[in-house]
Amino acid sequence: MNDRLTAIYRVRSDAQSIEARAQAIAVEQSIEMPVTAVDDPIVLRDIVGAVEAIEDRGDGSFTVRLGLAVATTGPEVGQLMNMLFGNTSMHDDVTLEDVAFPPDMLAQFGGPRIGLAGLRIRAGAQERAMTCTALKPQGLPSSGLAAIASRFALGGIDFIKDDHGLANQRYSPFAERVRACADAVANACRMTGRVTRYLPSLSGNLDQLRDQIRISIEAELDCVLIAPMIVGLPSLLALRHEYPDIAIMSHPALAGAARIAPPLLLGKLFRLFGVDATVFPNHGGRFSYSPATCRALADQARAPWPGIAACVPVPAGGMTTDRVPEMLDFYGRDVMLLIGGGLLAARERLTAETAAFQTSVENYDYR
Amino acid sequence: MNDRLTAIYRVRSDAQSIEARAQAIAVEQSIEMPVTAVDDPIVLRDIVGAVEAIEDRGDGSFTVRLGLAVATTGPEVGQLMNMLFGNTSMHDDVTLEDVAFPPDMLAQFGGPRIGLAGLRIRAGAQERAMTCTALKPQGLPSSGLAAIASRFALGGIDFIKDDHGLANQRYSPFAERVRACADAVANACRMTGRVTRYLPSLSGNLDQLRDQIRISIEAELDCVLIAPMIVGLPSLLALRHEYPDIAIMSHPALAGAARIAPPLLLGKLFRLFGVDATVFPNHGGRFSYSPATCRALADQARAPWPGIAACVPVPAGGMTTDRVPEMLDFYGRDVMLLIGGGLLAARERLTAETAAFQTSVENYDYR
Repeated sequence: MNDRLTAIYRVRSDAQSIEARAQAIAVEQSIEMPVTAVDDPIVLRDIVGAVEAIEDRGDGSFTVRLGLAVATTGPEVGQLMNMLFGNTSMHDDVTLEDVAFPPDMLAQFGGPRIGLAGLRIRAGAQERAMTCTALKPQGLPSSGLAAIASRFALGGIDFIKDDHGLANQRYSPFAERVRACADAVANACRMTGRVTRYLPSLSGNLDQLRDQIRISIEAELDCVLIAPMIVGLPSLLALRHEYPDIAIMSHPALAGAARIAPPLLLGKLFRLFGVDATVFPNHGGRFSYSPATCRALADQARAPWPGIAACVPVPAGGMTTDRVPEMLDFYGRDVMLLIGGGLLAARERLTAETAAFQTSVENYDYR
Repeated sequence: MNDRLTAIYRVRSDAQSIEARAQAIAVEQSIEMPVTAVDDPIVLRDIVGAVEAIEDRGDGSFTVRLGLAVATTGPEVGQLMNMLFGNTSMHDDVTLEDVAFPPDMLAQFGGPRIGLAGLRIRAGAQERAMTCTALKPQGLPSSGLAAIASRFALGGIDFIKDDHGLANQRYSPFAERVRACADAVANACRMTGRVTRYLPSLSGNLDQLRDQIRISIEAELDCVLIAPMIVGLPSLLALRHEYPDIAIMSHPALAGAARIAPPLLLGKLFRLFGVDATVFPNHGGRFSYSPATCRALADQARAPWPGIAACVPVPAGGMTTDRVPEMLDFYGRDVMLLIGGGLLAARERLTAETAAFQTSVENYDYR
């Protein structure tokens, strides 16, 4: 058999129907036409999806492993997603749970260029977890955002990312905002003697994204935030390829909850596609991911994977400083903790609260 | 109050919790931080999302109408989606059901450039429904696909779209395939004296998409197929703007089933963003959309909308020729019926089966 990847689905079904259902998915995700109407022996042998295994999960659902021809996937990231889940995303009895890639595909996408190790160097945080906060609210003018960024930086935090809602709105246009915030953070760093990196949130089409990266580089920034499911994965891959020295943090906006397992999409796939740090909703916050989902997602992001650097898991979504020890117990040191609103809620004590967050992470006992 | 759009969500909740839940979504989809930590009066007045109405649906769910500031949405399509559903897409108790746009936003996006009326002209089908089929299976060489395209065209069909699985694979590279299929269809049209349009499937990043449109134009084509949720909506909008004479048919791959109501995403939003014809899974085929969902989707695509041309609904997904009268009873004449595998299953009778499909649509009594 030619090169195949293995796509792993969870399918709600009864025992009598599952074999036919698995076969139907194998056809849907490959040739999408009646197999009996195909004459070509190469298509039948090398292209039609193959059911490799079906396993009863004992809960009214089955794990179905399909072998899909690597040749059908492009090579292009959008087409890969198309073959993995294009039409089947519209079947609400199926979720995409995992993918096993042959080595050649890993090399083709290549994973993070900066990754955990590179971000540690940029943050000057070799032996500890990293910290991050979020710059908001949108609606403030650039000067207002820059003032908040300055106060975060004076607290000594490692990373300040734009709220993913900051785009190119007229109340804080991208170029103006990024220059103002980059300057404010740089000035604060000169006062503290510490390193804080500011990540602007990119948006728009590929031309606009390139323009925004150029503006970011001109402001001496080397990290950015992107929501891959909003800009589109093909744009992410293009930027990853064109700007290997720019670290990319991903935001999960529009990534949904139910149809592609979060550990796969936000952990494994984003990592494979080159994301250096992946933001996701931690358990116990404003979102409903379970501890098991968060654990699996962090594992997918940073577990050893031949030839693919580790991506930093960034749990977020309603976190607070008092949860730092518990989060570090849970994730260990290979993590970046993100607290946004939880710091901003301190209002006039913002810098002190940021410093307390930073100290709490630095002083944690990482045995 | 400043300009607002209204986003309409369906939220699973009990009656005691729904007000707080609605407020939480309004904050999540606007400033995404504690309102109590916001000082700026303009942000509080103009930017924070507003709960406009909550209505009990009587089934354990509520309709929640939020007013979201137009200023937060960009103006950019990705940022619009971000504000509509970015973070809330990760809450599995919420679906995005509908959006009401103020007139300025409609004008900004502009809707289809060709639309129903323009496609009717291109097909020479003023008084009847249009027909479409799908070129497959992938894995065939370009010559094999061109031979099938020729046989479809000899049957007199209006449109032949590439299977959405056809990308730039090495067994049928885009440029080679498109030239071969365009030539084959043009030759067949010279024999039949009829008009058949071939739509290549585009994929990749914006640079690659532009390159593929250029190749398509060189092959004298004026219609293409795009899967917006795979290439990313920002790329769709860029192409729509740059190539106003190219008709765009959308494919729903990766559009999911559960989190954004299909009538909204595949009908209303794709139409607003400029799609001329929208493919979706018809009821009673391989997918699970109900007749009510299909009806609502078709309505969203083609109902009168001031300043926005109609988009052609294209029901598909396991349709067969014997269903033509029933589908035309259901959708009326303002539709394009798509039968792919159902024609290919006729094998050596492919041209005859295609002609029978075409005749059935042409001879239907459209009173």
